Amino acid sequence: MDVIRKKRDGRELTSAEIEHLVSSYTRGDTPDYQVSAWLMAAVIRGMSRAETAALTQAMLYSGEVLDLSSLAGAKIDKHSTGGVGDKTSLVLAPLAAAGGLIVPMISGRGLGHTGGTLDKLESISGFNVNLPVSEFRRILRACGCCMIGQTAEIAPADRKLYALRDVTGTVESPNLICASIMSKKLAEGIDGLVLDVKTGSGAFMKSQDDAAYLAQLMVETGERMGKKMLALITDMDQPLGTNVGNASEVEEVIEVLRGRGPADLIDLCLELAAWMFVLGSVSGTVSEGRKLAEKLISSGHALNKFREMINLQGGDSSVINDPSRLPKAAHSLQVVSPASGYVDAIQCEHLGTACVLLGGGREKKEDCVDPAVGLAVHKKVGDQVSRGEPLCTVYYNQETRAVRAKARIEESYRITPDRPGDRRPLIHRVIGSSGEKN
Amino acid sequence: MDVIRKKRDGRELTSAEIEHLVSSYTRGDTPDYQVSAWLMAAVIRGMSRAETAALTQAMLYSGEVLDLSSLAGAKIDKHSTGGVGDKTSLVLAPLAAAGGLIVPMISGRGLGHTGGTLDKLESISGFNVNLPVSEFRRILRACGCCMIGQTAEIAPADRKLYALRDVTGTVESPNLICASIMSKKLAEGIDGLVLDVKTGSGAFMKSQDDAAYLAQLMVETGERMGKKMLALITDMDQPLGTNVGNASEVEEVIEVLRGRGPADLIDLCLELAAWMFVLGSVSGTVSEGRKLAEKLISSGHALNKFREMINLQGGDSSVINDPSRLPKAAHSLQVVSPASGYVDAIQCEHLGTACVLLGGGREKKEDCVDPAVGLAVHKKVGDQVSRGEPLCTVYYNQETRAVRAKARIEESYRITPDRPGDRRPLIHRVIGSSGEKN
Repeated sequence: MDVIRKKRDGRELTSAEIEHLVSSYTRGDTPDYQVSAWLMAAVIRGMSRAETAALTQAMLYSGEVLDLSSLAGAKIDKHSTGGVGDKTSLVLAPLAAAGGLIVPMISGRGLGHTGGTLDKLESISGFNVNLPVSEFRRILRACGCCMIGQTAEIAPADRKLYALRDVTGTVESPNLICASIMSKKLAEGIDGLVLDVKTGSGAFMKSQDDAAYLAQLMVETGERMGKKMLALITDMDQPLGTNVGNASEVEEVIEVLRGRGPADLIDLCLELAAWMFVLGSVSGTVSEGRKLAEKLISSGHALNKFREMINLQGGDSSVINDPSRLPKAAHSLQVVSPASGYVDAIQCEHLGTACVLLGGGREKKEDCVDPAVGLAVHKKVGDQVSRGEPLCTVYYNQETRAVRAKARIEESYRITPDRPGDRRPLIHRVIGSSGEKN
Repeated sequence: MDVIRKKRDGRELTSAEIEHLVSSYTRGDTPDYQVSAWLMAAVIRGMSRAETAALTQAMLYSGEVLDLSSLAGAKIDKHSTGGVGDKTSLVLAPLAAAGGLIVPMISGRGLGHTGGTLDKLESISGFNVNLPVSEFRRILRACGCCMIGQTAEIAPADRKLYALRDVTGTVESPNLICASIMSKKLAEGIDGLVLDVKTGSGAFMKSQDDAAYLAQLMVETGERMGKKMLALITDMDQPLGTNVGNASEVEEVIEVLRGRGPADLIDLCLELAAWMFVLGSVSGTVSEGRKLAEKLISSGHALNKFREMINLQGGDSSVINDPSRLPKAAHSLQVVSPASGYVDAIQCEHLGTACVLLGGGREKKEDCVDPAVGLAVHKKVGDQVSRGEPLCTVYYNQETRAVRAKARIEESYRITPDRPGDRRPLIHRVIGSSGEKN
């Protein structure tokens, strides 16, 4: 009660007060209705850096924290705040592991209009993301990377708090988002973390300032706990790469690991891998890191690592040589340009929603995901188009869903007669320990 | 959810949105944890006058609204925001009824350090405050006044919201306090209401500005609903009258109705009665109203009305002629002045708490109240005292309780060698329909 009143009146809480609140809530001693009042006060009044760190720590220690010190090699993970067509995690885990890092990646499912790493991996027949910690550790030792979902032992306070925030209008707070992400990531027993904080119409942080604020907060919070941290603010004003939809994104990942695939996706994967190598002291500079990543792709080492991980997690790795074995939708249709000119802007969140409407994500929590459906995005911002030329191909299994998705995609594209000005950069800012790096 | 987010972001809610929230919560369709988040947002962001009125109306119509139009005479009530030794309701109900008004008074129990009208009435053997609405109406018709507790039919939304506010740090909001008070008072079927908004160390609103803000809000909210409204901001920087404690306050009420008793208590009762007569058009001016009230006391009419009401509500009215029949504590002790000088200040909330500690109020909700215990306050602010002279007499039944109460009383008094300056006035401000009256 005192803690609720204190935050209501805009005063700073002590670490002990925050720790008590979180542990009491996790144990079930403090009811939902008191915590939701506190969350609302925290959203409106804001939280200091020290409070955010204390909350992260309390949530982290509400559950098990992995100790991977027995594994040789730096433990470095990457986390994205989520976007549309963002399949970099599937490239980076094997790529970084191929370079000698240990990548203990605990990922999430699709949230709102964004895709989820676990949903994508499950489009590979047999792939098991629900492994116990013992198995996680075994696979990490065997191949250097493993990708699983949050277990019951990891940050139970976050699971409980997240469910409550979701239904009480208290999601949109950088401090609470930071604590939620960082408590899970720090539980992985990592030495360092590269953050990919998305900004733009397809991201949760629409403005670059909000993204930078969150990035800075997470970098500082991680560093307070002795982790090497780096954040890239990257563009999500249009989908990343070409494919949006679970199985088709895995297909694109295989392309990238073969040294092919869309330029923006390749570029971002190389940059993120390079920073992972720098944080793990495998490379001295980012450009050395990029060169190493390129070499690991061209040599086939990264793809082999992906195959190895799929096998160890029970998946059918024959999809790598034969992606036609991945789930395919029964039908397709084209969304064509209504006019000749240039793509001026894409409402990227709407494209993500179109994929959810097709069944590629969840409208309600209990929905099943259809791995086969999705979009191929043919025209991106700045591209020239002729009237009637396809903007996107929609892959679908149900006619009624396709109709809704098509309408949403048509709304998303803005075509202008004149060639647009400069494109937004893919990487907006780099935020490290000592502030911004440019 | 949208309503929670809207208030979180500081936007104004529509009447329909507020009505929906309140009715859905009262029905049990919206869970506590969502409403507590909304309450916290409302406390921090504040509410507009229109929102406050809409909330009051929604809470009012969550239950039964009495129709007393079949009773002849203006229906005028008085409400106090609560204090220490504030027994004016027990004087005013019979006094105003003796003057021809109908006083349908629905009161509360002690809250925190303050006393409650129902607890005081129940120190009269047999007095029943839990009457059904039909009986309430019958007694009002018979004698013009009746004093009961909140029934299940009256403003159920307020009962549910109040219980939630109490445990979520969302009590201290003038808007929510206004809606809580006014929804219950307007359910009484009144034509007008005189508000006694307390300010000072023994009140919930410690500052005069806060008290005036709440008073203005309640006056406006009542007027929006077509009621005649008037608010007095009165002093609660020290106890009102001499006695604090349930039975002893009834004894003091009988004194006042006999034309005796402490000057401050008499003065406030006359002023409040006068305004009730003005609102009910029984008197043309406040000074005429005061004269009428004085006459009704000196003639014995008011005391007879009190006797009549006690009889009709099942109480033992012989206490009027023989107050020794009221419950008496077994023991007493004196709290004496540690120095010679003047009483400079009294921490009035602590004196109220001392009475609670004796058992005269509730430390936990399920506690029983001991009607016999309490304090007699001999020295008030500005009074001269000698070292060793009694400041208060403590009437108690349990030694351990008396020890705690005595310590609290000793802390409450500040004695200075020099004669203090001007005393605070009893009536600070008068707030009516067209703003302040002075």
